[in-house]
Amino acid sequence: MRKGVRVFAPASVANVACGFDLLGFAIDGPGDEIIARESEQPGLVISRISGDNGCLPKEIGKNTAGVAASALVHHLGQEETGIELEIIKKMPFGSGLGSSAASAAAAVVAVNELLGRPLSRQELLPFAVTGEQAADGAYHADNVAPALLGGMILIRDNLLLDWYRVPIPRGLIALVVHPEITILTKDAREIIRDTVSLQQHTEQSGNLATLILGLAQSNFEMIRKSLKDVIIEPQRARLIPYFEEMQQLAISTGALGCSISGAGPSIFALYSNSVQAESGGKQITQLLENQAIESQMFISAINLKGTFVY
Amino acid sequence: MRKGVRVFAPASVANVACGFDLLGFAIDGPGDEIIARESEQPGLVISRISGDNGCLPKEIGKNTAGVAASALVHHLGQEETGIELEIIKKMPFGSGLGSSAASAAAAVVAVNELLGRPLSRQELLPFAVTGEQAADGAYHADNVAPALLGGMILIRDNLLLDWYRVPIPRGLIALVVHPEITILTKDAREIIRDTVSLQQHTEQSGNLATLILGLAQSNFEMIRKSLKDVIIEPQRARLIPYFEEMQQLAISTGALGCSISGAGPSIFALYSNSVQAESGGKQITQLLENQAIESQMFISAINLKGTFVY
Repeated sequence: MRKGVRVFAPASVANVACGFDLLGFAIDGPGDEIIARESEQPGLVISRISGDNGCLPKEIGKNTAGVAASALVHHLGQEETGIELEIIKKMPFGSGLGSSAASAAAAVVAVNELLGRPLSRQELLPFAVTGEQAADGAYHADNVAPALLGGMILIRDNLLLDWYRVPIPRGLIALVVHPEITILTKDAREIIRDTVSLQQHTEQSGNLATLILGLAQSNFEMIRKSLKDVIIEPQRARLIPYFEEMQQLAISTGALGCSISGAGPSIFALYSNSVQAESGGKQITQLLENQAIESQMFISAINLKGTFVY
Repeated sequence: MRKGVRVFAPASVANVACGFDLLGFAIDGPGDEIIARESEQPGLVISRISGDNGCLPKEIGKNTAGVAASALVHHLGQEETGIELEIIKKMPFGSGLGSSAASAAAAVVAVNELLGRPLSRQELLPFAVTGEQAADGAYHADNVAPALLGGMILIRDNLLLDWYRVPIPRGLIALVVHPEITILTKDAREIIRDTVSLQQHTEQSGNLATLILGLAQSNFEMIRKSLKDVIIEPQRARLIPYFEEMQQLAISTGALGCSISGAGPSIFALYSNSVQAESGGKQITQLLENQAIESQMFISAINLKGTFVY
């Protein structure tokens, strides 16, 4: 029987309000699965993709998981090894939940595992980021790093992939609501102005610094004061129907803060307990339902595990 | 005999590379002294100023210490109480060492003490900031807060005066070199562009977040990687002769980072030990001496005490 490994990589929330391109965390679900199997034909192929409604290309060089796996295989000098990838999409793309990052993370872990685990989990990061880059054009790790490594990750420098784990206060709970409308990350990037005022910079930086210190010191009041986005959210919110109303519902149910997850349309909120998060999630999905917008909600502690092998 | 109190407020380093208008720390010296004495004449007066080469106005409404003290006296409803202030400037203004902040901090502590300490140290902050505002036009606390309260302080919001103590790793040493040339804070502010690129914003924010986490976790390597200013320093450095050379000497003697102290012309560097800081300080002052620029150097742990009553 041919050897095979099955891997799960979780969804992730990038930006985290004041941490545009710098901060991201993983949640428990949803996520993507990838199965890597030995093959008699030399080279890397994608044998099957499911759950994508036929949208994703099987061509290695055009597929996020394919590009990531291919970069890894090339680095390891294993281009001639026969590997088949089966991609099982269990989360929507263009949702702001790091779908392509999950596929990229799952791909590198699956291939690394199949080849006898030559690299550590951390060493896999650049290859996964390369895959993510194929999907949205930018080389940044704020989804890939948490999807791969778990937890909340601060990326000081996306080019150098200089990253740090941010401590997570006990009891911190994430609510994520995904309204079923589609925004492509590329489009969401394009509407963002490439300059900010010095005043906005200072305000956003002060909030990010306070958020990091608040997380490190388990100080929920600091998190509440600082979990805000004065730069990106005002520009992207108009792409998301009822964003202000959803944010208002999150805050009124006790959320520490609420903003756009990645490039949207999903939103996230952080809470200090799951009872309030449940209440917020129900009210927000109800609001969307009243407007005839289907949605899914996810409530989860910060996922500390990241990508795992079944 | 009339009652009197004598107070010392230390110099401080604001901005701290990537924390423009947000971060500051106090050093042990130099600093300003203020003596507050009961007076038979009702009202607040400045009876004497020394060490200022006759540059500072005695008029309450035009003097940093006067404005700060006056705001406090007004808040306490003690306008009719006779108080004489004697200001002993022991540090140069326009040095980037928070000279006006030290005078403002010393003034409010001295007056508060003379009046029987009606307010806590923290409650004095807004009055001291009001005094500082008189000196440089901007309402910000990144010098005043550390001068008054000691330590390293993150000001999330200058308008709300929402501030937090940043943990200080054991062994952290500050070198400050003051070249004897004058830059007025107002001028140094005026040359700063009021927009930044989104890329600069992200880079600077990532560094600030890493600096805060590195300080909180006593991780000197994180501090070394992040103690940089890609926004303000490139604009202000040209006001400071030999800035790049001084910075280079600091780095080559092992500094974790080196940038402009406040609006300059003083520079600061942080080190993980005092031996390297001494070496850096000597080389930098020697460089300035070779160029016929007088300078003073100060080597100090972060001053945790702030303003104190003798």
